[in-house]
Amino acid sequence: MIEPSVLKGFRDSLPEEEIPKKRIIRILEDVFSSYGFVPIDTPVLEYTEVLLGKGGGETDKQIFRFQDNGGRDVAMRFDLTVPFARFLAMHHDKLGIPFKRYHINKVWRGENPQKGRYREFIQCDFDIVGADNAESDYEILSMMHRSFSALGIDGYTFHLSHRALFSAFLEHIGIEDKAVEILRTVDKMRKIGTDEVRKLLDGITGDPAKTEGILSFITSGEGRSFTETLDAIEALSGGESEHSKRMRTIYSLLENTGIASSFVFDPSITRGLDYYTGIVYETFLDKLPSLGSVCSGGRYNDLASLYTKEKLPGVGSSIGLDRLMAGLMELGSPLLTDSSAADVLIIHSAEDTEKAIIAGEKLRKSGIRTDIYLVPEAKMKRIYSYAEERHIPYSLQIKDGKYILKNLSTREEFSFDEPEKIREAIIG
Amino acid sequence: MIEPSVLKGFRDSLPEEEIPKKRIIRILEDVFSSYGFVPIDTPVLEYTEVLLGKGGGETDKQIFRFQDNGGRDVAMRFDLTVPFARFLAMHHDKLGIPFKRYHINKVWRGENPQKGRYREFIQCDFDIVGADNAESDYEILSMMHRSFSALGIDGYTFHLSHRALFSAFLEHIGIEDKAVEILRTVDKMRKIGTDEVRKLLDGITGDPAKTEGILSFITSGEGRSFTETLDAIEALSGGESEHSKRMRTIYSLLENTGIASSFVFDPSITRGLDYYTGIVYETFLDKLPSLGSVCSGGRYNDLASLYTKEKLPGVGSSIGLDRLMAGLMELGSPLLTDSSAADVLIIHSAEDTEKAIIAGEKLRKSGIRTDIYLVPEAKMKRIYSYAEERHIPYSLQIKDGKYILKNLSTREEFSFDEPEKIREAIIG
Repeated sequence: MIEPSVLKGFRDSLPEEEIPKKRIIRILEDVFSSYGFVPIDTPVLEYTEVLLGKGGGETDKQIFRFQDNGGRDVAMRFDLTVPFARFLAMHHDKLGIPFKRYHINKVWRGENPQKGRYREFIQCDFDIVGADNAESDYEILSMMHRSFSALGIDGYTFHLSHRALFSAFLEHIGIEDKAVEILRTVDKMRKIGTDEVRKLLDGITGDPAKTEGILSFITSGEGRSFTETLDAIEALSGGESEHSKRMRTIYSLLENTGIASSFVFDPSITRGLDYYTGIVYETFLDKLPSLGSVCSGGRYNDLASLYTKEKLPGVGSSIGLDRLMAGLMELGSPLLTDSSAADVLIIHSAEDTEKAIIAGEKLRKSGIRTDIYLVPEAKMKRIYSYAEERHIPYSLQIKDGKYILKNLSTREEFSFDEPEKIREAIIG
Repeated sequence: MIEPSVLKGFRDSLPEEEIPKKRIIRILEDVFSSYGFVPIDTPVLEYTEVLLGKGGGETDKQIFRFQDNGGRDVAMRFDLTVPFARFLAMHHDKLGIPFKRYHINKVWRGENPQKGRYREFIQCDFDIVGADNAESDYEILSMMHRSFSALGIDGYTFHLSHRALFSAFLEHIGIEDKAVEILRTVDKMRKIGTDEVRKLLDGITGDPAKTEGILSFITSGEGRSFTETLDAIEALSGGESEHSKRMRTIYSLLENTGIASSFVFDPSITRGLDYYTGIVYETFLDKLPSLGSVCSGGRYNDLASLYTKEKLPGVGSSIGLDRLMAGLMELGSPLLTDSSAADVLIIHSAEDTEKAIIAGEKLRKSGIRTDIYLVPEAKMKRIYSYAEERHIPYSLQIKDGKYILKNLSTREEFSFDEPEKIREAIIG
């Protein structure tokens, strides 16, 4: 006998998790489709060189990498961004530009599993490639807003900033050569706090005045409206620029479509990754700030430069589905708590098998999800615990030619001559 | 620069393939849910020992197997059946029995890629575990029928047989010790034809009379009705048995729910795999018999015996989604041919950006999938080819405060004062 177990950092998804996950993914797909975004998929395995770049990452312990039976150096994708860049380089002429895609699927990282972090998890990415203007920046933000609204989340705020405005500020105070280190340090603000960040920045700038300048830049959104913050940032970064103008246009579109109140200008948002060049954003659930960002991204100038000379600027975002689901669970969202496997469970004796099956077919045709308990000889106690495990709200018993519908929480019973009539009693 | 390419035997899924695939999966998931089947998922990576059994498969070239960074011997799943058995062994006490699940996801095999066969492909499995009776056999068949009907396929036939009846027959003629070899040989009938099978059987039985007996058994469905065939098979296998009685009960349920005409009794169906013990089946599209079976499976006695002492009999089926999609494409199914990315494309000049965006939001709210062309300065020719590439049927242009809806195939135009009015013109 082999001990049945899963690998460290991996897990099974049982129905009570998988049902809500599928429900949430459908809602998101419907939102994305309503904006004309199309789905793509890419292989789980790719050439390691394609995923990590030439020579790069030889020592990268975070990825699942191996030689296949044909001796190729291959790896499992660790995000959906790199495969998308490779995909664009290969197919952009067929796809037509601008290209708006979404991709919801698993990725793998060998990092040490922590609470709530796994080696296999789902990413949900959406991007617009081939347009560099306020309109496309707005469209991604609008779709993020619509997604969170469609999920019925009560209270979420999108924190926006602009990478180029931050860079202009660093240039303005003469420390642009340390931009990458500074960005990465500021990005840790939420995790390690102001005091730690100040210490680290002092180490980088070597000048407490410059450190305070940076800290005052990134906190300049506190207590200020979006446009007040933008005014302040504009001044700190050397005056009006195409970037500050872009930000004003985006905000005016958010205002004129009535969604501005969900957006704040938060200059502490920098995103750790190098490739962002324009707006950047993170998303927090108002009631669960400590959960961290559940939807992040930004604008990049040239995603596919590793594989093609074609310039492909874009703007995109990624929803951390596992983290979002954990948050929704904590908030008691009905999306998570309703994982009923069926609307009705038909219970019957062996001699009524055929009646039960015919009733089942009729109920399904009328749109009622109908499970039939398949072991007629089982004890009632066992059958009811089956219904309970599956969160099935009603049972339907066949007794003396009658159909008895029972609400399993109130224990109310209703009697019917025909199974067709039951729909109304359930749907109301 | 790195040459962008995918591994041999792998492929990207572009929107015109991914849109229909997602549509088909949703239809199937809705059918499965209507029967109270619940979704599960399992890790892509598992311990090799769990997937292949102890010591077994050391030389198996067909799987993607490697040492992870922690030195574990791991492999990517090659089907959804083995992980399901492991899953059942670990979770059956929490799940409650009978357990009805579906699982639609990718699997990987390193076999040499042929036309239409890839190293990464999607399986769609559904099983009932923990009930061994005609009712559960029927339920799987009924769900298969409902699935094909929901996909709008014109003409499909389920070929049923019974493994235990075949075994009884072999015992009856005294060659049950060669059952495994004979089953595998008969399973090749469709591929290699009667003459080749006769030759191979002669080699196994060493007795032309027995070979003819087997051939006459497996062709006894030709020109006969379901029950006539069953009568013949019953006689050839030594008279009435629990198995032949089970088969009669299943058929009577199929008849009484009005779906019997899609089922034939075809004793040449044996399924190559050892673990089947009861009904077995394959499914063929009437207009494309050469495509091969698009949905196959059967009853097994004890799926999880490798991992647990718990007896878990079941019945299940698997749809070959890639093959089915190839068939639907060949048949010109609208499920495959409609891959429109949106219902309407909004075209506007730079000064009308805000109007365009607001019109877009309104149309989406009314249920119209609305794409906005994001580069207002582009040439009309380029914009129309964008719409064509995405199979978008309508454009909406903003001109002098009016909204001009254009049917892009008939070139008819309609003028509106308000974007809200457009819904009717499109939906009809």
